[in-house]
Amino acid sequence: MNVIATRAARLVVSCPDQPGIVAAVSAFLFEHGANITSSDQYSTDPAGGRFFLRMQFHLAGLAQRREELEADFQTRVGQRFAMDWRIRGEGEHPRMAILVSRHDHCALDLLWRWRRGELGAQMTCVVSNHNDLADDVATFGVPYHHVRVPSGGKTQAEGQMLKLLRGSVDVVVLARYMQILSGEFLARLGVPVINIHHSFLPSFPGAGAYEKARERGVKVIGATAHYVTEQLDAGPIIEQDVAHVSHRDGAEELERIGRDIERVVLARAVARHIDDRVLVSQGRTVVF
Amino acid sequence: MNVIATRAARLVVSCPDQPGIVAAVSAFLFEHGANITSSDQYSTDPAGGRFFLRMQFHLAGLAQRREELEADFQTRVGQRFAMDWRIRGEGEHPRMAILVSRHDHCALDLLWRWRRGELGAQMTCVVSNHNDLADDVATFGVPYHHVRVPSGGKTQAEGQMLKLLRGSVDVVVLARYMQILSGEFLARLGVPVINIHHSFLPSFPGAGAYEKARERGVKVIGATAHYVTEQLDAGPIIEQDVAHVSHRDGAEELERIGRDIERVVLARAVARHIDDRVLVSQGRTVVF
Amino acid sequence: MNVIATRAARLVVSCPDQPGIVAAVSAFLFEHGANITSSDQYSTDPAGGRFFLRMQFHLAGLAQRREELEADFQTRVGQRFAMDWRIRGEGEHPRMAILVSRHDHCALDLLWRWRRGELGAQMTCVVSNHNDLADDVATFGVPYHHVRVPSGGKTQAEGQMLKLLRGSVDVVVLARYMQILSGEFLARLGVPVINIHHSFLPSFPGAGAYEKARERGVKVIGATAHYVTEQLDAGPIIEQDVAHVSHRDGAEELERIGRDIERVVLARAVARHIDDRVLVSQGRTVVF
Amino acid sequence: MNVIATRAARLVVSCPDQPGIVAAVSAFLFEHGANITSSDQYSTDPAGGRFFLRMQFHLAGLAQRREELEADFQTRVGQRFAMDWRIRGEGEHPRMAILVSRHDHCALDLLWRWRRGELGAQMTCVVSNHNDLADDVATFGVPYHHVRVPSGGKTQAEGQMLKLLRGSVDVVVLARYMQILSGEFLARLGVPVINIHHSFLPSFPGAGAYEKARERGVKVIGATAHYVTEQLDAGPIIEQDVAHVSHRDGAEELERIGRDIERVVLARAVARHIDDRVLVSQGRTVVF
Repeated sequence: MNVIATRAARLVVSCPDQPGIVAAVSAFLFEHGANITSSDQYSTDPAGGRFFLRMQFHLAGLAQRREELEADFQTRVGQRFAMDWRIRGEGEHPRMAILVSRHDHCALDLLWRWRRGELGAQMTCVVSNHNDLADDVATFGVPYHHVRVPSGGKTQAEGQMLKLLRGSVDVVVLARYMQILSGEFLARLGVPVINIHHSFLPSFPGAGAYEKARERGVKVIGATAHYVTEQLDAGPIIEQDVAHVSHRDGAEELERIGRDIERVVLARAVARHIDDRVLVSQGRTVVF
Repeated sequence: MNVIATRAARLVVSCPDQPGIVAAVSAFLFEHGANITSSDQYSTDPAGGRFFLRMQFHLAGLAQRREELEADFQTRVGQRFAMDWRIRGEGEHPRMAILVSRHDHCALDLLWRWRRGELGAQMTCVVSNHNDLADDVATFGVPYHHVRVPSGGKTQAEGQMLKLLRGSVDVVVLARYMQILSGEFLARLGVPVINIHHSFLPSFPGAGAYEKARERGVKVIGATAHYVTEQLDAGPIIEQDVAHVSHRDGAEELERIGRDIERVVLARAVARHIDDRVLVSQGRTVVF
Repeated sequence: MNVIATRAARLVVSCPDQPGIVAAVSAFLFEHGANITSSDQYSTDPAGGRFFLRMQFHLAGLAQRREELEADFQTRVGQRFAMDWRIRGEGEHPRMAILVSRHDHCALDLLWRWRRGELGAQMTCVVSNHNDLADDVATFGVPYHHVRVPSGGKTQAEGQMLKLLRGSVDVVVLARYMQILSGEFLARLGVPVINIHHSFLPSFPGAGAYEKARERGVKVIGATAHYVTEQLDAGPIIEQDVAHVSHRDGAEELERIGRDIERVVLARAVARHIDDRVLVSQGRTVVF
Repeated sequence: MNVIATRAARLVVSCPDQPGIVAAVSAFLFEHGANITSSDQYSTDPAGGRFFLRMQFHLAGLAQRREELEADFQTRVGQRFAMDWRIRGEGEHPRMAILVSRHDHCALDLLWRWRRGELGAQMTCVVSNHNDLADDVATFGVPYHHVRVPSGGKTQAEGQMLKLLRGSVDVVVLARYMQILSGEFLARLGVPVINIHHSFLPSFPGAGAYEKARERGVKVIGATAHYVTEQLDAGPIIEQDVAHVSHRDGAEELERIGRDIERVVLARAVARHIDDRVLVSQGRTVVF
């Protein structure tokens, strides 16, 4: 990730909870001349739990002093509290790739938002197992890679995708990508992967969620954005939303209503991830 | 049910779909001088499906002409289309009983709505396996029956409840009644039973739904009102709603938020059932 | 509008309320061999009010028998009840034009839904007082007309637009078009114009709605789709929705949240208008 | 307010924004052995704006050390940053009175929640200009005062209410109290007064909000909880919510739907006020 001179930044911390963390961090920032503009914190349990902190601050000359600041933080605060921590300056945009099959609504929505400046990310490329969206993606000036996944050719396809993605992206978004990614692919990719599932999990995991919803006769349908783990549709949930439906809504109508939920839920999840607002703890997320 | 003189009424029909049903019903009502004030219809499939109709109408002298009208309808329309049908005059209130354990929010809400006139029902009694709500129910002037369910005494308790309820109620509402009713009880009771479940089914069936929701890290919790069948939490869904939650919401907070959803979802389901707006078709509901 | 052979159609009626309307319409359709697949009706007042009806039906050979059917309906039903009525066959798509300034979210969303087949309309053209969206619109294969509105040149600009639109569109959608259209323009255009306003009217009419919302400190913001009348932001409301906001949401964030509401509210309103689901009665809408 | 021994407490601060506030407060709490369990902060403008902070913490022996802690905080932190601040221990419940006229839904809902432990308040009394709710309130064991407001007798009635309330309550809740309170009454009462208005302000201020909503043909109705100021329905908004309605919903139905929103919105606002989560800034609220 490219470091750009900036005055606004955020610090994200997770560590074992104990008294004095906020005092230490805020004193450190104050002493370095930073002004804390917002702060969120959460503890799974004040006695023996895990503590999460996200602070936004303004600091003059951050770019020039970045290395020194980080070294000092690690020495004086990070080590003392056994912290996982990261500072990201405003404008240091994570690199994102989109994987998509044929449904265009989620991918286009992300591209629209990205172009409008709603998503603080660098859009590196779109990868698809189909060619359908090539023209649409071209209008955004984003590279489009067609990686076929023929029957029996999944391993090879994943290999191709790893060549395209590994080391050049910080997050991958599955915007209705209809192939299941192998555990090995996920491990070798080594960055978070966000998926949109077309139901309010844990209801209706797997394929055909809207059909299952109609079959069961539910009165709300929904969508779930979650981090991908090897276990299908069981990863940490980042965001969910629903819409009311009725007996009148057939399969096609459920899909139409569902598309509107899916794209909004995915966009919210991606925006929060990119803004370093999502932290994972024991299979669940903390979303600041 | 006591028939009261009235000018407003509703006709509810279900039958195999075929052309001419609406024409026949509306012509019949027009010839008898009725003015149709609202109408809802639904077909599971215009070719070979099942047809559902609910018409509200005004008719002078309905009370006096009721018997003749019903006989005429059966002869001229009902038989021809193999209809299940029913006419209910405004003011012919179904008799309702509430079963509740210790959580008061759903039961009090129903009693309060009933007293306000929001529910067109006769409230016959409240039955509970605890004594906690006796005083509260008394303020509404509704009989309260305490039927203990000691360990191993379920069959006897259900027998006591059948004596209280069978033949004297048209619908039973489980307003957070924490005992599972046996299939035999349901069969012998012989009227619809509506339950409120504290999750958006099919997620988190059974006990401890809020704990399970917290464990899974969902971002919405919900409630489901459904008809009770022998299979736990699998009956036809009448109404569902949800609320957004976050990692900050602990078990107690989820229950607090959940109570607000539960009482509203149950009240809506009961009101619609009482207004003859809910029809069951193949394990699902049509809600007009 | 081009008449295409079809078996599905809808009949939309408004007339003074009186007994027998549904019977007459449904008997007429039955006698012509139609199968009514859905029906919605509403009366502002069963005694002396106005009655609205929308029936969907299937009819073999509708295209060939259309003229005869319509003449017969007028003779036997329409005249008798003093009806305003219209039959539209499935596939007879109204012609739509979009007017837009610089905000792209509503226009792109409509074009995308149209391309997906969510909107049963013919997209005739996009007209803008700016050139910003020309390339985007081109990717949808829709003509783009740039009609400048220089200071003092409004009358001339409206004249240009009338040449482009009059007689060639059935509905015009203002997808964040930031110019106020004159009463004369609306009168000469002679078709319904739908606007999206960026607040839940009647709160915050006119420009700068999000700023006003922030100034007042409201906790929900919204959007309103309405028919345009000469009186600014006072036309019949078709659809509204809102989102929760907090003190943390600055001007930019309110606009971002608002964009998501605006595009959905406008899309719903346009879809319902196109499906002949919106009828106007005394400055208000009936939306079936 | 009675000070009870406790280990959990919250500190609420508002002051001119400047660097170092969080560092000073958190260092102070840490040095006194407190563990900060949650923290919310907001600045209207990091440069020259106003800063708001709410910290929850655990502290052993708070009750015994309270006086010393408060004196020390004022000396070392409060004066330095020109803070308005307050510490409230868990269990130090503010004293609340409810004013209500005839609509029972908001008052009963607050009493239910209070009895269930959802509201951390002492319920001192209910005051009404009618006698309708006396019996209901009696079942909660809360004193009920009937203070008539005859035509021309408002000043006297307000005098009676001041005798009942002044000095013995910390907050007054207007749970559908249909009299306008004078500026003098509010000034002499000297504690915050929360009102529930039956529309999403600024739409439809004053009386008859549901009628006005129906007249305008809006598709959402709402409710607003706000602090009462001398200017009718213009005080700082604490909480708002809405529900969707349609042309079918007549005056009675709008009121029924509205009641469900009103009671939930008011309950949320009261709960947040009681938990010291609401701070007022320039006619708007910060709600943590």
